[in-house]
Amino acid sequence: MRAVVMQSGKLAVEEFAIPQPGPGEVLVKTLACGICGSDIHCVAHGRELLDSAKKVAGIDLFGFDDKVILGHEICAEVLEYGPDCRKTLAPGSRAVSVPFLLRDPPASLVFGSPQSPGGYSEYMLLSEPFLMPVPDHVPNDLATLAEPLAVAIHAVGRANPGMKDVPIVIGCGPIGLAVIAVLKARGIGPIVAADFSPSRRAMAHRMGADVVVDPRETSPYDSWKALAGATDVADIGRQTQMFPGHAYRQSIVFECVGIPGMIQQILNGAAPCSKIVVAGLCMELDQFYPSYGIIKEVDLVFCIAFTLEEYAQAFSMIASGQLDVAPLITGHVPLDGVEDAFARLKDPEQDVKIVIVP
Amino acid sequence: MRAVVMQSGKLAVEEFAIPQPGPGEVLVKTLACGICGSDIHCVAHGRELLDSAKKVAGIDLFGFDDKVILGHEICAEVLEYGPDCRKTLAPGSRAVSVPFLLRDPPASLVFGSPQSPGGYSEYMLLSEPFLMPVPDHVPNDLATLAEPLAVAIHAVGRANPGMKDVPIVIGCGPIGLAVIAVLKARGIGPIVAADFSPSRRAMAHRMGADVVVDPRETSPYDSWKALAGATDVADIGRQTQMFPGHAYRQSIVFECVGIPGMIQQILNGAAPCSKIVVAGLCMELDQFYPSYGIIKEVDLVFCIAFTLEEYAQAFSMIASGQLDVAPLITGHVPLDGVEDAFARLKDPEQDVKIVIVP
Repeated sequence: MRAVVMQSGKLAVEEFAIPQPGPGEVLVKTLACGICGSDIHCVAHGRELLDSAKKVAGIDLFGFDDKVILGHEICAEVLEYGPDCRKTLAPGSRAVSVPFLLRDPPASLVFGSPQSPGGYSEYMLLSEPFLMPVPDHVPNDLATLAEPLAVAIHAVGRANPGMKDVPIVIGCGPIGLAVIAVLKARGIGPIVAADFSPSRRAMAHRMGADVVVDPRETSPYDSWKALAGATDVADIGRQTQMFPGHAYRQSIVFECVGIPGMIQQILNGAAPCSKIVVAGLCMELDQFYPSYGIIKEVDLVFCIAFTLEEYAQAFSMIASGQLDVAPLITGHVPLDGVEDAFARLKDPEQDVKIVIVP
Repeated sequence: MRAVVMQSGKLAVEEFAIPQPGPGEVLVKTLACGICGSDIHCVAHGRELLDSAKKVAGIDLFGFDDKVILGHEICAEVLEYGPDCRKTLAPGSRAVSVPFLLRDPPASLVFGSPQSPGGYSEYMLLSEPFLMPVPDHVPNDLATLAEPLAVAIHAVGRANPGMKDVPIVIGCGPIGLAVIAVLKARGIGPIVAADFSPSRRAMAHRMGADVVVDPRETSPYDSWKALAGATDVADIGRQTQMFPGHAYRQSIVFECVGIPGMIQQILNGAAPCSKIVVAGLCMELDQFYPSYGIIKEVDLVFCIAFTLEEYAQAFSMIASGQLDVAPLITGHVPLDGVEDAFARLKDPEQDVKIVIVP
């Protein structure tokens, strides 16, 4: 089978043996696989990622010179079951799955190997209990969005906003846009969004943001104040300095950029007692004034991944049409086109989500 | 009247006119006033504090060259009511109060002026609705601890720990010790505490910490793991990488030091999905890796001050004996001794809390 392999920080298309499904596993044909920002990051900054994972969680994700097959936003076709399967879905059925094999220890497909590849590959293995059937009316590429939407559902869940909150989404890349779509589907808002890119701002409107600003021209925090009916920050400071949590309106800010400086920038702008949900993955050393967090008494809520339930919820909201996220898909490429797609995705004007069709 | 005045970063004892109570206010004699770490910080780093308050909250706390009368941990004797008072407490009664005047806008006594001084003064003004009578069996100095204990009650409330949680308190200064006392009074624990100072560690034991470590010798996070029955961090990482929030035990860490580097140090040590309550007031620029927060999916919960209800709760827990915090008071000084007390408080071996008796 053919697969795009990452090795020593480079991509190449190579031939591998088709993997063999173990007990409870199923061999599937990859029908579509989204390219995630973290895939691009992983190819560009693999060493830092490995160092960080080792230091933080004590885990070896992969060896820098190993052959890694990425791809965790997947839609696939059931081909052949391994031993000990219930075979509920007939071969030929389409399915999605969390990018995870139920082995001991569990195996992540986020950084797959030739023996258990991610979706940048013609074939892959999935665990039968994780398979969710894809209804006929849902196209392959749309089904792959269950994964980034699950990330957004998880981030919104961590913020736990009320119906009348006015959330602010900083950064309208795929995750920021998915957060907007989830907030909208839940009826939370009005929603303020900010991005430097005109295309991304247009897409933010399309996903349901009510006020979308170019932060070079308009402060999203000023927009928030106008919409939330909050009093002036100086008044807020005066009134709540000793008794936080009572006299004003908190903001909920989603950090979906992931570069150094963003957290301090949000600490500067956010209202006292705000929740700041950090969904942007900044791998570099960052600087900030803890005193700003303290004086404003904010919660910095860091986010990654999702639960099985959140993935199922995301897929069901896409399949039912509650989340209309098809516009996020701006391109399709074959395995040979992945390297080119990585280059295209660096320009926010051009693409949001490119899906690989192996 | 005599008062200790802070001006241009220096302390001096000066004579002032006794202030006149306005409507709803009462003139009181200051019986005792605790010295807070933030007072010392304010004298040493006044300019940074003013810059920061201006930038963060848009407020001018005071002018650097103004005469400021500090002191917000107070116990006082009712002398004379201003107009429009109910006069529920007879003159001669003892009372505590939040350090706040109910004016429009509200006036903080944390940075008092000669017209509405803080407790570093023979007399001060308080707002009648905030007065809480001090029962006869409660000494003046003990009553002043309602304020720092209210800060601790607020910090513990922000963490919202469960009865079976194993909280970790990093730094056993007055706030760290108060947090330990509050956790103990609530039956939460076992409690792990860490401090470099042998005296502070002894005091942490006395306040109710169950395992107290010198972090140069023993990692408080290892102690936590042993007590919480958590699996190895590497196992935690493997199992929860995709499904956070489920398979392990989170830690609750109280940061009560307030110097640069502490937040990253805690991010390194804390278990995935931990709540990190930042109660230490670090005014300097700090550095950290957001990716550590993200991969572990922590909540960084910043804390300052308290509500009226929390202050009342703290005072009632002290008065009823639920909180046995008398050992925290290690010295008493007259107004002339404040400068000396500031110097003494720099040595953690010598003192925890020094109370001014004007």
